[in-house]
Amino acid sequence: MQKTVSIVKIGGALLEEEALLEAVCQGFSAMGGAKILVHGGGQQASRVSQALGITPKMVDGRRITDADSLKVVVMVYGGLANKTLVARLQALGCNALGLSGADAGLIRARKRPPGNLDYGFVGDVEHVAADTLTTLLDAGLVPVFSALTHDGRGQLLNTNADTVAAEIAVALGRERRARLYYCFDKPGVLRQVTDPESTIPLLDQRLFRELLERGEIAAGMIPKLTNAFHALERGVSEVYIGPPTLLEGVSGPFTKISL
Amino acid sequence: MQKTVSIVKIGGALLEEEALLEAVCQGFSAMGGAKILVHGGGQQASRVSQALGITPKMVDGRRITDADSLKVVVMVYGGLANKTLVARLQALGCNALGLSGADAGLIRARKRPPGNLDYGFVGDVEHVAADTLTTLLDAGLVPVFSALTHDGRGQLLNTNADTVAAEIAVALGRERRARLYYCFDKPGVLRQVTDPESTIPLLDQRLFRELLERGEIAAGMIPKLTNAFHALERGVSEVYIGPPTLLEGVSGPFTKISL
Repeated sequence: MQKTVSIVKIGGALLEEEALLEAVCQGFSAMGGAKILVHGGGQQASRVSQALGITPKMVDGRRITDADSLKVVVMVYGGLANKTLVARLQALGCNALGLSGADAGLIRARKRPPGNLDYGFVGDVEHVAADTLTTLLDAGLVPVFSALTHDGRGQLLNTNADTVAAEIAVALGRERRARLYYCFDKPGVLRQVTDPESTIPLLDQRLFRELLERGEIAAGMIPKLTNAFHALERGVSEVYIGPPTLLEGVSGPFTKISL
Repeated sequence: MQKTVSIVKIGGALLEEEALLEAVCQGFSAMGGAKILVHGGGQQASRVSQALGITPKMVDGRRITDADSLKVVVMVYGGLANKTLVARLQALGCNALGLSGADAGLIRARKRPPGNLDYGFVGDVEHVAADTLTTLLDAGLVPVFSALTHDGRGQLLNTNADTVAAEIAVALGRERRARLYYCFDKPGVLRQVTDPESTIPLLDQRLFRELLERGEIAAGMIPKLTNAFHALERGVSEVYIGPPTLLEGVSGPFTKISL
């Protein structure tokens, strides 16, 4: 039987509230098999930025990462959010190992060239070292990634956490059955963003196009869904979007993404 | 032949100046054999604390770590200092893996019980997972430790970096020939703190006692030397104190510590 691996990305809002964070840590710890956690930390980073007098710059939900903002995200994602999660998971018996993409050269990215907009120190993933990651998984370790990468020439870069999770799933999906979970504080992809009862159980590309045409997909969901379809096209076996209960395998509401 | 491992602790001042940091990274990258880097980052943490309006509290050169200060050291040691070092080492071809003591459950500590002084979230090392560390070393990885530990129940703790380095050396020294290097911005242990020509080439316990009696050892050096002798007594093969050039094996001034 082919080995499996679960890649779980948790949205920043889940890190903000104690009950949600506890649910995520419990659910993730209980998952069987090889697994990887990927987290953001944007809201925390924005608060630390403001406390330091650095005004966060956002365009279309993406952070413009100047040199000072990069320091903040390295402190918050790579330090505070990552190590806090690792310590909590360790307490639950999950052998978490906190990582950035620079560690063990795991995720190399290219600084995004300035086009209409200069994103600053933002990296687009070029290479995931699947062999090193496999060595860590085979040693029984549970990688916990902050969404930081490096260019291999000494520069750290900020990378979208959804993309980091998808790229890891694609890289490991070449040798294993990879399941990708996008976990957040909603029950799944909603037809009506204000109605939690409107979760779409199965979302394929055709329905996605229809909903897009009718303007029925929240703008913030579009990059996540694009990442999800792209991952499936590149060999990831399954993609799910839903709340932390998704990790416990319970029959709650969630959205399964399909080509 | 018995395997060797080098444990290099770099003092915070080396992280502050570009030329010194570059010398450390070059020297450390060039070292042969299994190796581990341990770093502090106290000066950087104090600056971030002040920028956040948190006044760092120090008693006898040791940080009093309240809840807010712990967040700062986790951000700065575990995030900014650690990931910056890792990215630089990776650029030099050194397969650095940034770690805290919580990661992979590597260093478990006990929160220091309040006595005359409550140090706050400060941990005294109880256990180093030498087997996991050996797995990482055998995979060709180069652990880079920030001086953070955890209590195994979800609490991160701040631990003196000299002590972290000594405890790692002792734990690995049971199976390997462990060499411990305390690297800082001075040529070694000095007879006269203002005279860089006064480096003591070989310092044994008898000379240490004599110098202590004559008041010829700088107060700040005493805990470092106590750590050094303690490490030798517990099986570490060699301990050196000196500047970054020490790592290049050149015949510069440095202090060798001996029982």
